Formats: sequence, structure tokens, C-alpha cells
Amino acid sequence: MNRLRNHIEEITPVSDEEFEYIQRFFIKKRVRKHQYLIEVGDKVTFEYWIANGIFRTFYIDEGGREHILQFGLENSWLSDYNAFFHQTASQMNLVCMEEAEVLCLTLSAREKMASELSKMEYFFRRKVTNDYTAQQHRIISLLSQNPRQRYEEFGSQFPEIIKKIPKKYIAEYLGISREMLSRLNAPDRRRSLS
Amino acid sequence: MNRLRNHIEEITPVSDEEFEYIQRFFIKKRVRKHQYLIEVGDKVTFEYWIANGIFRTFYIDEGGREHILQFGLENSWLSDYNAFFHQTASQMNLVCMEEAEVLCLTLSAREKMASELSKMEYFFRRKVTNDYTAQQHRIISLLSQNPRQRYEEFGSQFPEIIKKIPKKYIAEYLGISREMLSRLNAPDRRRSLS
Repeated sequence: MNRLRNHIEEITPVSDEEFEYIQRFFIKKRVRKHQYLIEVGDKVTFEYWIANGIFRTFYIDEGGREHILQFGLENSWLSDYNAFFHQTASQMNLVCMEEAEVLCLTLSAREKMASELSKMEYFFRRKVTNDYTAQQHRIISLLSQNPRQRYEEFGSQFPEIIKKIPKKYIAEYLGISREMLSRLNAPDRRRSLS
Repeated sequence: MNRLRNHIEEITPVSDEEFEYIQRFFIKKRVRKHQYLIEVGDKVTFEYWIANGIFRTFYIDEGGREHILQFGLENSWLSDYNAFFHQTASQMNLVCMEEAEVLCLTLSAREKMASELSKMEYFFRRKVTNDYTAQQHRIISLLSQNPRQRYEEFGSQFPEIIKKIPKKYIAEYLGISREMLSRLNAPDRRRSLS
């Protein structure tokens, strides 16, 4: 729980009493590799704060192809947010890629905490605002950058993810084919062989 | 200002006294067609609430091509949010497409209002959360849908925008070429001629 406190305090300081109050809203959960926290069609009960481990949130199109909305490493918050906030059936899958510990938060717990403790209202506003501006950047990248530019930018923004996650999934996140990603990686392979 | 109150009250009711307090933070401005509210490189002083009129926020890539992040019709909030929140130079342009009236809000006014009136903290959290989930949908659309699917979904989601905005800009929003958009429109032209 201390890591959650550090994470919250990146946005706003909280007293010992306040954190005591906050942590009561969360439910701890261990998650195995390949375990699904959300499957398409589920009612989405929780959002999840990742204490450690790796997750991906993905959409499967009509042709059965997977498209990755989000990777979640430690300190990420994940859910199918449209379904979570509107309490509708999920259109996404959320699956564990590396054994993990998460903290689970229901919508009613989240709203109660935000209404009773103004610092948490502030925290959630700031957090989603940061996520919103990061998403704007991703939209501009998808609209304006070619596959090589997208891949190189991803590598410089998220060097840890590049190391930890199979290339197949990076391709599904960047909206490029696996063949294209292999071609983009080819010069690096040649260098390492020479 | 009454329209701003209606807009806020879609998320939370406010009393006459509270709205009296809120409206003092906004500065009214009339905007001419083709007038820029933000240009690349500007310090971004304001976010804008659109009382009426049409705007677009766009990015120009290294090759000089325009990519549209957002259209703004009445009740939209627009800015280069990354630059606004981090008080850095804008990477976007925000331009008026149809004569407009806007209300301007500085970052310090926004933060003061949110900290002094918890209903506005709640309003801004809920608003950006809605915008965040809408953006997630757009990312999935850009990753998974072909140009025809994107165009048809846009038409059913935003029938007003399709009517009011030249096709060139719709193409720049959907990440498809103008030639492709013309081909997608071709069957409609044939039908109207027959």
C-alpha cells in the first residue's frame, strides 16, 4: 500500500489519517500470467491500480485481429473505462502478461472517496487529465507518423516496455503489421551480427 | 452565460450564487472566421468554451500536412491541453471555421475555481473523464477500422459535423486521404444522380 501512497503523493500530499481512509476502499488481488481481469461482455466492476506486473487492454475486431489500447506496468490504472463509468458490458479484454499484484476499486468506492475527500477528487481529476493529454499525443501520432516514426518514438518514450513485451504486441499497439515491425527491426539485427 | 450554466448542470446542479461566482472567471470573446486562437509556438494562456461557432484544432507534420485532433462546436472545450496544463509552447493550431463566441479561462482561474468550489472540481473531473473515454474509442477506431468504417461511424456519431464541415477536414480528422474520401462518397453521388 505504501507504493500507492507514493503514487498519490506525486499529485497531492496526504496525511497518515487520510491515507488510512483511502486504502480501506481498495481490495488487494494477486493475478497469474494469462489470467483475465476483464473479458468482452463482462460487467466491469473494478478499475485496477497495478502495484507490479504487466497487463494489456485489447479489442478484438470482427476479423479476429487484436488491437491494443493500453499496456499497464506498475503505477498504471486500467479498466474498460467506458464500461466501468457507464456500468455497461465490456468491449475490451484486460489480461495479465506477467504475474502481478493489483488493487481493485469499484465505481461506487471511487465516487464516495472523491466526494468525501477533496484531495482524491483533485487526484483523480489530475490523473485523468494527464492520461487525456497523453492520448491526444497518441492520436496525433497515429494520424501523422509513419510506422518507423511510431516505433522509434515508442522506443524512446517507453524503453522499459520495449524490453519486456514481445514485439507482436508492440505492433498491435502501434497499428502496424508484424511483418512491417520485423522490417523495422532488421537493421538492428544486422548491426548486432556484424 | 446561461448556456454555460446549462452545460455545467448536465453534470452537476449549481445554485444562483455558485453560478454568479463561476462566471466571473470567464472572459467573453467574439471570434471571426479564419481567426486563430492558438498558433504553433504560442504560450497557451486559455482554454476555450464554445458558446457557438465551429473550430478545429490541428497539427501540421514535417511534410506540411494538416491532421485534425478535434472539431469544436457549441459546448465543446478546446485548447492545446498539453501546452495549457504544462504552460509550454503550443504544438497545435486552433482556428475558427465559422464566426463564434467563446468564453476564455486561464489555468490559474480554472485551478482556483476547482479548489474553492468542489462542484467545479467534480465537473472538470467528470468532463475530462468523458473526453478520455471518447478518445479511447477514437484510438480503437484508428487502429481497427478501415476508412469506410471510420467514415460511416463518424457520420452516424456526428451527423451535424458532416453537414457543416468541408469533406477535406473530415478526411484530416479520420486519417484518410481526400481521394479515398471522394471514393467513399461516390456511391452517394451516383444515387443522387439516378
